[in-house]
Amino acid sequence: MFEKVLIANRGEVAVRIIRALRELGIQSVAVYSTADADAQYVKLADEAVCVGGPQPADSYLNMQNIVSAAVLTGAQAIHPGYGFLSENSDFAELCETCQITFIGPKPATIALMGNKANARSQMQAADVPVIPGSTGFLKDEADALAIADQVGYPVMLKAAAGGGGKGIRRVEAPDELSLAYRDATQEAELSFGDSRMYLEKIVAPAKHIEVQVFADQFGHVVAFPERDCSLQRKQQKVLEISPCVTMTATERETLQQIAVRAATQIGYLNTGTIEFLMDQDHHFYFMEMNTRIQVEHPITEAVSGVDLVKEQIRVAAGEPLPFEQADIQLNGAAIEARVNAEDPNLDFMPQAGVVKQLKLPGGPGIRVDSGITSGDMISPFYDSMVVKLIAHAGTYAEALAKLTEALSEFELSGIASNQLFLTALLSDPTVQAGTATTNYVTEAFLPRFKSQLVKEVS
Amino acid sequence: MFEKVLIANRGEVAVRIIRALRELGIQSVAVYSTADADAQYVKLADEAVCVGGPQPADSYLNMQNIVSAAVLTGAQAIHPGYGFLSENSDFAELCETCQITFIGPKPATIALMGNKANARSQMQAADVPVIPGSTGFLKDEADALAIADQVGYPVMLKAAAGGGGKGIRRVEAPDELSLAYRDATQEAELSFGDSRMYLEKIVAPAKHIEVQVFADQFGHVVAFPERDCSLQRKQQKVLEISPCVTMTATERETLQQIAVRAATQIGYLNTGTIEFLMDQDHHFYFMEMNTRIQVEHPITEAVSGVDLVKEQIRVAAGEPLPFEQADIQLNGAAIEARVNAEDPNLDFMPQAGVVKQLKLPGGPGIRVDSGITSGDMISPFYDSMVVKLIAHAGTYAEALAKLTEALSEFELSGIASNQLFLTALLSDPTVQAGTATTNYVTEAFLPRFKSQLVKEVS
Repeated sequence: MFEKVLIANRGEVAVRIIRALRELGIQSVAVYSTADADAQYVKLADEAVCVGGPQPADSYLNMQNIVSAAVLTGAQAIHPGYGFLSENSDFAELCETCQITFIGPKPATIALMGNKANARSQMQAADVPVIPGSTGFLKDEADALAIADQVGYPVMLKAAAGGGGKGIRRVEAPDELSLAYRDATQEAELSFGDSRMYLEKIVAPAKHIEVQVFADQFGHVVAFPERDCSLQRKQQKVLEISPCVTMTATERETLQQIAVRAATQIGYLNTGTIEFLMDQDHHFYFMEMNTRIQVEHPITEAVSGVDLVKEQIRVAAGEPLPFEQADIQLNGAAIEARVNAEDPNLDFMPQAGVVKQLKLPGGPGIRVDSGITSGDMISPFYDSMVVKLIAHAGTYAEALAKLTEALSEFELSGIASNQLFLTALLSDPTVQAGTATTNYVTEAFLPRFKSQLVKEVS
Repeated sequence: MFEKVLIANRGEVAVRIIRALRELGIQSVAVYSTADADAQYVKLADEAVCVGGPQPADSYLNMQNIVSAAVLTGAQAIHPGYGFLSENSDFAELCETCQITFIGPKPATIALMGNKANARSQMQAADVPVIPGSTGFLKDEADALAIADQVGYPVMLKAAAGGGGKGIRRVEAPDELSLAYRDATQEAELSFGDSRMYLEKIVAPAKHIEVQVFADQFGHVVAFPERDCSLQRKQQKVLEISPCVTMTATERETLQQIAVRAATQIGYLNTGTIEFLMDQDHHFYFMEMNTRIQVEHPITEAVSGVDLVKEQIRVAAGEPLPFEQADIQLNGAAIEARVNAEDPNLDFMPQAGVVKQLKLPGGPGIRVDSGITSGDMISPFYDSMVVKLIAHAGTYAEALAKLTEALSEFELSGIASNQLFLTALLSDPTVQAGTATTNYVTEAFLPRFKSQLVKEVS
């Protein structure tokens, strides 16, 4: 087992990883930007190294500085958390080169799944259903037109190397395709130096359903009960639920088998998440794979009883998975709420400032993952998500009641947060029924919520 | 189901009960003394009624005021928590008379188990092993001498109506018995107006093992996995563990069967705990029954997945238990640490004062039950236990590591606490082996701990 591990991340996920390391008796090394010198995770770590200035490019994305910190402190492995360098195959490769274990999949796997068109092809080869569309890259505009005619409009043109919304165009009808194709291709070339495109039918309304998988180096691959992450605002998940209320046990088993097939196909190692769309007829379509731990992993830990972060570390150290598929049982229901330092009255603009008082809820079935405490400064340079509240109970209804109660006890003063938004969401009938699709928050919930806010202000 | 329930208690257990009520959609009424006007549980409740001055006799033991508060607010039931009036059969009867449901067993059951000699007789009738000693009350000094000779010295003379260490004498040899008998009898008469005595052999070294039972009004009785509460200082539990590390699955099953037999014998209703001594040969002896929820109930909730307080409320409302014995599985291991506002440097003297900052730990498997928050006043009138930290993991070793980590993150400033004592206890080899008996903390651990404290001070 490793004696010392460096965490190439910050905030609550760094706290999460340090806790796992300490429980395993492993020394932890934090890296931090000058803006994070007083952060909780820095205090919690056994050692801490400043790797640069506040801007992510200078610190948390600064591969050389981070790997140097690992070498200098004698860390044998690096846990990348989520975001930042966690899905950067160059970083994983740099770690390998420096004989530091990257706690995650192989660099080639990260690169493979990072190219969305290649990922689609791999999934098709493994008989994993993908969204109807092109196979591999589009040859040209005519190819795009032919495939769009075949799968039916509306369709989405997407840059294969894409991310961050660049090189993407929605196309409603054949006469829009030509212009969209040229625009998207140019933007992709400019953004990624790679103009290759693919095309997918737009599946809507649909639920965002994702499956956590875990694989060791001995060929064992298991899948966990799914998460329903359909409640999103601007592509950001706000409340995550496990299991999906509207799926049957048979559908769950089928989807887990699909996920295991997908992970096996690409020789996956460690943990990752395969994201699917589920349409109204409960057909599943592969969207993409996240080759890292995710923000919402605690709800899977709650319903499965598996500590995913500890398991990541053990598997990276060469240990076999201590469980098989049959051991992964579904125990009750769990929901996570992401508390963000953002102001719903200012269109959810992220807020910076000092946390005057943080009061955390507790009691049975309540888990709190926080990166902050009273008196901390929330800086404007990073993600606004500061605390995660997770409720676990026997049923979805009980978990909802528990999370509602926890959220009512939660206090974050001195800085605006989305607490009111989350509270309103938890009491929404569609959320309580568990039937929301990915467009629900933006198209149905937010307009009502905003008019409510306006009323309260006036 | 009840629409409104009054909580006849304070502090963390009042918070615990209010959370359960809110999750069940039931209105909560807190009662408080003038010293507790700003307490967390008072703020959390839907309504709150002041029932008297700071002295417990004036408020939390003031039956008339509490029942009046229930009648005035329209509460249909009273949850007594632990301590205070929770095992007072007169209070339970007063509730019945006022047509308010007492959330607990019948008054007659409380009275029966409150008289320790009668409780012994009932257990013997149910073929539950009791500590060797008298059957029923001692007739006289000669009777005591004869029975002590029969069971072997040392023995303990105990007042049947006893409690609080009154009317109890340890007897090492026959020539000490006469004086001890007269002393104890007089003290019992003075303390309880009841001079009746019984006698038990002293079983030592032994573990304190207790079993939570639950019964509904339809004759269903189930027992939960045992708790090892051997780690005690002055008869006060400090760390509780479930399950007992040194017991086998067969012993667990046997003990659960004994506990079910005991509860069935006395027609028990709602939840309670049967306390046993386990000697070095793993023989079990009934000690007494607590006819209420206990401080350490969260570790049983952790390993069984059952919310005991919610179940108390449902069963009191006439619902059947939603599980059978076969449904009660043992899932991993859990440990609870009681954080007390007391100063280990002053022989653990309880401390009063203002909590400057309270920082709670979190993450997977960590539960916090707290009655206080930053800025709160801890008054000198009540029990010094202010926060419970509970860790749940796959194994005892993992739960220990988790609780150690949580305790290292925990911060309570502005007032002395036993945090250092708990930390030292968690790293003690005998505690880590799970083999401690009831005398361990006082006789082996504390002398070392105190000399360590002296060294650190000097």
